[in-house]
Amino acid sequence: MARSYHGVGIDELCAAADVRKGSFYWHFASKSELAKAVIDLHADAFLQHFEAPPDTPLRGLRAVADAIAAIQAGFVSQFGQVVGCPFGNLAAELSTTDDDVREHLAATMAQLEGRLAEICRPAAEQGLLRDGVDPDQLARMLMAQYHGAILLAKVNASNAHDLAGALHAVITANVRDLDARPTATPALNRPEA
Amino acid sequence: MARSYHGVGIDELCAAADVRKGSFYWHFASKSELAKAVIDLHADAFLQHFEAPPDTPLRGLRAVADAIAAIQAGFVSQFGQVVGCPFGNLAAELSTTDDDVREHLAATMAQLEGRLAEICRPAAEQGLLRDGVDPDQLARMLMAQYHGAILLAKVNASNAHDLAGALHAVITANVRDLDARPTATPALNRPEA
Repeated sequence: MARSYHGVGIDELCAAADVRKGSFYWHFASKSELAKAVIDLHADAFLQHFEAPPDTPLRGLRAVADAIAAIQAGFVSQFGQVVGCPFGNLAAELSTTDDDVREHLAATMAQLEGRLAEICRPAAEQGLLRDGVDPDQLARMLMAQYHGAILLAKVNASNAHDLAGALHAVITANVRDLDARPTATPALNRPEA
Repeated sequence: MARSYHGVGIDELCAAADVRKGSFYWHFASKSELAKAVIDLHADAFLQHFEAPPDTPLRGLRAVADAIAAIQAGFVSQFGQVVGCPFGNLAAELSTTDDDVREHLAATMAQLEGRLAEICRPAAEQGLLRDGVDPDQLARMLMAQYHGAILLAKVNASNAHDLAGALHAVITANVRDLDARPTATPALNRPEA
């Protein structure tokens, strides 16, 4: 998380984990295979936040935004800085050079986007979205906003505080005015930190 | 662009450029310095698209969205695949390990966001944005959407076609209904490629 995939070799990984190299290769055929296992680990943690069905679609979207920000706040606590998204970091570094990891990432990220779309679609059916807003497109927009906002926080050596606000602002921009000013978006109109 | 920063060494760079290593170090004190020069090169190319003042703020925003997509389409033609944003790729890989490059990137990306904000602010003053939309926040949202959308296109080994649509959708969601259905957003309601 705090360094690049190519910046850390298997020798160093084994030393940090206090395992022999032979033991590593008994579990993982390659560093790519370890990367895929790490992707699955983070995906499982992420998907737990979708398990409880939301009482309303909009509260569900708001809750996902807050959960994503909480996950990132946890990373900041753990690493002492914004380290970015595990999926986004690997996608940026490996998509053009390791097609196996890229495909695994693409499928994982599509699954997460699909879960978001499963909340956006009932929101559309209940007439909660602005005219012309496609629910699948909104799910994609939220995924993109998350990845972009955490990358900007990372390059600015900022914190994860504005991430929830960035996601809530996208939700607010796409729902009917009924929900335009929720009480749960403290970062929305705050000046830049 | 098509490989990671750590994946390409100075020896290989010198061989590709057909220059001696001593010549490289005469121009650049380190690989980081070369990275900063590459960042400046791309920033200058990017900033050219902000030189002509837009006739209206909304047309200006729409034009920037199309220009960004055109730049990415150029990269796809050049490299045969979506390689991502030069700023975003370096930010993802180096922000936590090379503070010098990170600061250079952060300043460059803030400059680009500032140019976007210079279009968003008159849009707000002219009452073109939805109630409650902060123009600086909209500039940030567009920057984040760009970085996230191009990362998703990269991990999906997709193309740059949907990038314009992703940016136009964010603009549309934040402006008054007057502009809600522009004619210049062909990718908006297209099914996934």
